[in-house]
Amino acid sequence: MKITIKVPATSANLGPGFDALGLALKLYNESTIETSSYFSISVKGEGGDKPYIKTNNTFVNIFYDVYKELTGRRDNFRFSFFNSIPFSRGLGSSSAVITGAIAAAYKMANFDVNKEQIVNQALSYESHPDNITPAVYGGFISALVHEGKVVKIKKEIPNIIKAVVVIPNAAMSTERSRAALPKEYKIKDVVFNLSHAALLSSAFMSENWDMLKIASEDMIHENIRMKALSELFDVRRIAYSEGALLSTLSGSGSSFLNLTYEKHVSKLANTLKSSFKEFRVIELEIDNDGFSILER
Amino acid sequence: MKITIKVPATSANLGPGFDALGLALKLYNESTIETSSYFSISVKGEGGDKPYIKTNNTFVNIFYDVYKELTGRRDNFRFSFFNSIPFSRGLGSSSAVITGAIAAAYKMANFDVNKEQIVNQALSYESHPDNITPAVYGGFISALVHEGKVVKIKKEIPNIIKAVVVIPNAAMSTERSRAALPKEYKIKDVVFNLSHAALLSSAFMSENWDMLKIASEDMIHENIRMKALSELFDVRRIAYSEGALLSTLSGSGSSFLNLTYEKHVSKLANTLKSSFKEFRVIELEIDNDGFSILER
Repeated sequence: MKITIKVPATSANLGPGFDALGLALKLYNESTIETSSYFSISVKGEGGDKPYIKTNNTFVNIFYDVYKELTGRRDNFRFSFFNSIPFSRGLGSSSAVITGAIAAAYKMANFDVNKEQIVNQALSYESHPDNITPAVYGGFISALVHEGKVVKIKKEIPNIIKAVVVIPNAAMSTERSRAALPKEYKIKDVVFNLSHAALLSSAFMSENWDMLKIASEDMIHENIRMKALSELFDVRRIAYSEGALLSTLSGSGSSFLNLTYEKHVSKLANTLKSSFKEFRVIELEIDNDGFSILER
Repeated sequence: MKITIKVPATSANLGPGFDALGLALKLYNESTIETSSYFSISVKGEGGDKPYIKTNNTFVNIFYDVYKELTGRRDNFRFSFFNSIPFSRGLGSSSAVITGAIAAAYKMANFDVNKEQIVNQALSYESHPDNITPAVYGGFISALVHEGKVVKIKKEIPNIIKAVVVIPNAAMSTERSRAALPKEYKIKDVVFNLSHAALLSSAFMSENWDMLKIASEDMIHENIRMKALSELFDVRRIAYSEGALLSTLSGSGSSFLNLTYEKHVSKLANTLKSSFKEFRVIELEIDNDGFSILER
């Protein structure tokens, strides 16, 4: 048996939607798993140059946890990874690995691959639902965890809306980034974020794209985190001056997600490329499907 | 010239949507204003038995503020109020008076009545947008104040959804109720409320009614306020056991708003009536239009 699982990159912590709102992007980690008489692993793309990715591979570790739980066996497989999602850049590479490994294990164990089950099992590895849920279902996602399970509403994004992602040449640590946040928030900031998160969801749900800019403002984490890489303030300013509909830190950074109408995407991407030559700037579409498995 | 302005009751602070989410109900204050050679005022319905409502009437005071600003004159009018929205019960009676008075003043001054202008002028009397905005536009509203102006997304609610409002025989003071709230919130509670407010908005926008119960949970104000009238915990428990889709404190209380499918509304209302004989229990439809003015 040989399968390839494709899992999209995701942009979480969307604006005011800390730990709650996210969307999926057409940038994928593709992992091929094949039954084999011996264990082997190859890594291409992101992480391909790092030996430790092969010797202690998170995908393989989680895959075997789940596969063993389902079958009671530890069989040999040949793993071939082609990763396009950069590490530690706020684009959901961890969630892609977690959801990919769990779903692949179900498939290789000859169990049904039920998306609800996959996303809930992924919660035991990643407690915030805003990356794993779009990685599983695609689209724009409003999610929360209720009694240990992911509860979500998904909205497919029409293809008139495109993304331009700015990927800095330096990582931001999620843990350090989270530790820098205040322990308590004043009611004014709480109301700011909940009212903006509600309006941002309403804007996506009703396709009211011109509302995204105002609705995506945040008071609880974005500006604090952006201080670690101050060029990001310029990214946001330039993006809005070039017709971005939304320009927010992706996850806990360091990448920046910009959404724009299709007609503005080239100009936006070109201006960002010429302004930030040391950063990667890529045009992407929104993924509306989440992970998919191809049997070969 | 003689006009009647009809302004709906509203239920704000909807679940986790503190100062942000609200909806309008088909329960109205109707105010008739007529040019006259002398000033007069009559009050029927709510407040009709309270002399101070006639001698220092908020509607009349705001009406004259705005009318004078628009015309430079202080003409005489005959005011006849028929108020169906109870006072100090969390059903938006103040916002109904404010928006009604401003809109009536524009009309009587022969100015266009522009809803955007009315809601923004109402902000100077009521700084939170979640009652005034549904009073002006109707429907479910996700709102916030950006650079001094109301920004909102509205969703009309189909008439398969009905409300049952429980109105206790005691008021709750908004100011006292607000003063009882904590000054600071932990990030866990902030995330709880913003994720639920986002999901609640998404649920209304996508008509995902079965999601309302989970999405309407709140961690920042509701339970604290309900302690002032502990029967409200029973109202919520009974409402959910009788098929309520949502059961939350209305505004800052003391009323409770329950939403349900049309087919369950009678049973829900009857059970609440027989369980809380000292409270008023009324079945209402959602208002999708906001205030309206009739020229007579």
